[in-house]
Amino acid sequence: MPTVDIHTHMYPPNLMTLLRQRPQIPYVRTFDPKIGERLIILPTEETSTSTAKGRPIGPAYYDITQKIAFMDRHGIDVSVLSLANPWLDWVDSGVASRVARGVNDEMEGMCGGEGREGRLFFFGTLPLSASSEEVVGEVKRLKGLKHCRGVVMGTSGLGEGLDDPRLDELWKVLESEGMVLFLHPHYGLPDEVYGPRKSEYGHVLPLAMGFPLETTIAVTRMLLSGVFDRFSELQVLLAHSGGTLPFLAGRIESCIAHDAHLMKKSSAGGRRDVWDVLKKNIYLDAVVYSQLGLKAAIEASGRDRLMFGTDHPFFPPSEEAEGEWLSVTSNVKAVRDAMGDKKEDVDAILGGNAVRVLRLGV
Amino acid sequence: MPTVDIHTHMYPPNLMTLLRQRPQIPYVRTFDPKIGERLIILPTEETSTSTAKGRPIGPAYYDITQKIAFMDRHGIDVSVLSLANPWLDWVDSGVASRVARGVNDEMEGMCGGEGREGRLFFFGTLPLSASSEEVVGEVKRLKGLKHCRGVVMGTSGLGEGLDDPRLDELWKVLESEGMVLFLHPHYGLPDEVYGPRKSEYGHVLPLAMGFPLETTIAVTRMLLSGVFDRFSELQVLLAHSGGTLPFLAGRIESCIAHDAHLMKKSSAGGRRDVWDVLKKNIYLDAVVYSQLGLKAAIEASGRDRLMFGTDHPFFPPSEEAEGEWLSVTSNVKAVRDAMGDKKEDVDAILGGNAVRVLRLGV
Repeated sequence: MPTVDIHTHMYPPNLMTLLRQRPQIPYVRTFDPKIGERLIILPTEETSTSTAKGRPIGPAYYDITQKIAFMDRHGIDVSVLSLANPWLDWVDSGVASRVARGVNDEMEGMCGGEGREGRLFFFGTLPLSASSEEVVGEVKRLKGLKHCRGVVMGTSGLGEGLDDPRLDELWKVLESEGMVLFLHPHYGLPDEVYGPRKSEYGHVLPLAMGFPLETTIAVTRMLLSGVFDRFSELQVLLAHSGGTLPFLAGRIESCIAHDAHLMKKSSAGGRRDVWDVLKKNIYLDAVVYSQLGLKAAIEASGRDRLMFGTDHPFFPPSEEAEGEWLSVTSNVKAVRDAMGDKKEDVDAILGGNAVRVLRLGV
Repeated sequence: MPTVDIHTHMYPPNLMTLLRQRPQIPYVRTFDPKIGERLIILPTEETSTSTAKGRPIGPAYYDITQKIAFMDRHGIDVSVLSLANPWLDWVDSGVASRVARGVNDEMEGMCGGEGREGRLFFFGTLPLSASSEEVVGEVKRLKGLKHCRGVVMGTSGLGEGLDDPRLDELWKVLESEGMVLFLHPHYGLPDEVYGPRKSEYGHVLPLAMGFPLETTIAVTRMLLSGVFDRFSELQVLLAHSGGTLPFLAGRIESCIAHDAHLMKKSSAGGRRDVWDVLKKNIYLDAVVYSQLGLKAAIEASGRDRLMFGTDHPFFPPSEEAEGEWLSVTSNVKAVRDAMGDKKEDVDAILGGNAVRVLRLGV
């Protein structure tokens, strides 16, 4: 059974060029040649005067040969690429479709490159700042691209979140075309929630709490607004094992059960509860860095709905090293530890589920 | 083995009187006699013009005979009472000590009332708006009260969160006196994170996501600032099974391990990791409403560190009913389901652990 990485990011070279030319957020800039290029995506990063502001962005982010080298080093047979944040909600609506097509065609080209056939697939990016028709049109076009297996999205949707009824057209076409939605956080939480000493803790609080919560809130808003009642076949892959959805599912259901107004509305509308949605509509990646988290994810969605991921090229080793990345080995170890001697389940999570769900077999 | 509820709230009658007289947040008011008294604690509640704004507050919140009736109805032998939010950070510093002493003496009086001996204990409230000396003084005084077994606190501390070095005096006295700190959320997250349709979902998003995240961020800030390195015997009981700490623990450690600056600092300071702290310094209540959550909590801290709670008088049945509360039965069921036929472990979580940890035996 192949090892498949379904959470691995790339910025296509032409998008990099676009980001290098932009005067405002998001943009890529070299403030200090000794430090290298930086990607600035949040307003709070821009106010910093440090030449090390933003996040480092090097060849691992846009050079496909580096992705292949990373895969080879870690025994990863197949990768399903996705653009990382920010996606394309910052693009002027008039050119959004064109930019999205460019990104997606470039991804398709990388996947189909010589000697790479069968090793690379991708999640397409949507022109969310364009019209609903253009978004739907791009989904249909993506369906026709040989290596595309779904779409990646942040949590902002058309600007008002994923409980926006204007997204129904998108859910409908994803459902009917059998395209998986990979939902990934971007904005985190407002900076003030981390308190006055947040800068002493690097990116730990935004990455370890803000990101997972953003995902959890987004998918819970989909649930509460009835998206999974109206589109019962919609398939959503949640980044970072659902953020915190598995652990909070019980509390979510309890809070709904204690809200007379919601219960009245939902008994009229035949509401599906979070447990049902977790087992029928949600896939979880296995990017949770602990055996505890992995077991909880399995209990939430089932061992046939979990898929291994690395989050490459994020979380590189903090010291230069030629060996394997801790961010990869810790997640492989979590799968092996949680599954014990059930080799079949290990294989399913490390690759088999992805091959089946995303149709990666030749 | 007795059943013990360690997460159950009371507003002492004299504090209610004070809240009824206050002109600004927090206050208690009757806007419409048909609706009854309401507690207003957040600025966003105050801007509403509805006479049903804020949260209902009735005798179950301040009448100890109702607490006893609730305990009897649910087979709860012992309750460890705590003031609910808001605690006393809103009190003028000049009178804070006096108000805290009043609240705590009233709690002590309720616990020692005729015919109740052995059934009620409490977590004391601190005058956090007063001086550090007064806070420490009240902890020492609480230690001398027969029924006090620790202190309850929100996440704001002295106004700058629980990673504030000015709190070291408090951690030190709690550690040396062997008093458990019950850490409970209050402020949640800024309203905007729930999006423009939040009002359609009642209190589900703030209660199910905001509260748990507030707790998780607060305790992670304690961890990152080295509180548990400096006070290695400090014992903290986290509300709602740690918010999301068990599930996110792996991600927290991974983010720290990938931060060169934090790793350098911590290898110099002998940093204890989150798993070590979870097993030696953290107790978790069993207020998580799912078998999945309960199992994760046990894996995080151990079955000897989990303690049953109800969160009474919050989450009453949405329909008037004489029977047991769903918010109680769902948590009892989670314990029984998770533990299977291990009766000893069920007994430990439902009461034995609390009796041992909080010294509730006669």
